[in-house]
Amino acid sequence: MQLLEEYITKYGEALSEHVLKVDAFLNHQIDPELMMALGKDFCEQFKDKNIDKIITIETSGIAPALMCGYIMEVPVVFIKKSTSRILQDDCYQSEVHSFTKNIDYTIHCSKNYVKKGERVLFIDDFMANGDACLATLNIIHQAEASVEGIGIVIEKAFQGGRKKLEDLGYSVYSQARIQSLKKGSITFLK
Amino acid sequence: MQLLEEYITKYGEALSEHVLKVDAFLNHQIDPELMMALGKDFCEQFKDKNIDKIITIETSGIAPALMCGYIMEVPVVFIKKSTSRILQDDCYQSEVHSFTKNIDYTIHCSKNYVKKGERVLFIDDFMANGDACLATLNIIHQAEASVEGIGIVIEKAFQGGRKKLEDLGYSVYSQARIQSLKKGSITFLK
Repeated sequence: MQLLEEYITKYGEALSEHVLKVDAFLNHQIDPELMMALGKDFCEQFKDKNIDKIITIETSGIAPALMCGYIMEVPVVFIKKSTSRILQDDCYQSEVHSFTKNIDYTIHCSKNYVKKGERVLFIDDFMANGDACLATLNIIHQAEASVEGIGIVIEKAFQGGRKKLEDLGYSVYSQARIQSLKKGSITFLK
Repeated sequence: MQLLEEYITKYGEALSEHVLKVDAFLNHQIDPELMMALGKDFCEQFKDKNIDKIITIETSGIAPALMCGYIMEVPVVFIKKSTSRILQDDCYQSEVHSFTKNIDYTIHCSKNYVKKGERVLFIDDFMANGDACLATLNIIHQAEASVEGIGIVIEKAFQGGRKKLEDLGYSVYSQARIQSLKKGSITFLK
């Protein structure tokens, strides 16, 4: 997506070979007009999938997911993160290891907000190795809902996320794909 | 705000005299159309204030703040929460005690995203005793930006937040004011 690549080029910062900082418009400060453009683009991409619900993970997935939900006229559910296991029967939960922060955490979602038979679009701000995405898909499966699409704002294509998901039969739509990062330099995969 | 009170009456749950659960449309599942209505209402309320930037706190303030930012055509910054102190010179930080969770936490904001002289609207999903709001105002003051408005989606008016803020010279606009909660019963302050 051209507009997003322009934002990343102009406002993003490659801090290392692994870390792309987009705090200026997505992860700390949010550009609402860009978020609406991302939401419209996701909507266009998945408009034939009869989506019932969008699921994202707190925190930075919320803005693009909300705009997509507004245009699609469907609710948005944000899955919550916790560093402790949740002892609640009314939640689905799944474990994730964050390589960025080197911590394990639990993601959880109330059984009230993802239901059997619902057609779900998963949206998130970043995909790296795909583990947070897989943990979310696990929750959707526990609920016996169906994953009708995976929409990612920024894919770090040099990490293994897409392959893991494709090997499981999913397709992934990313709005921007990063081929490589070097301190001060960002290369897109076209 | 009539529409919000209808949502709270229909989908909210008073779990005790202190806890109002609105996970169905604000704190876990989000209703995007309602969020747009809340954003428009905040915009209408603060349209004469020449707002440069909206500041909110993660996580549930993001959705109404984003919609307001979209309509006002200004950026939205979400302040981050952490249970540990942040050791970064490039952040403003402030301490908050959460009575709900009985923990202390730090909120922090990059110095890049709140600047001297900016006219800030603070938006948050809930106000109870006002401590999270005061901690945010503290960050805005550290930055030498000005607080031009405080917009709250749901005010628990039976707690002391409004008085603390008014005693400091601020005015607070709340879209719904809860006079009292009892298990199973929600009374609005008109």
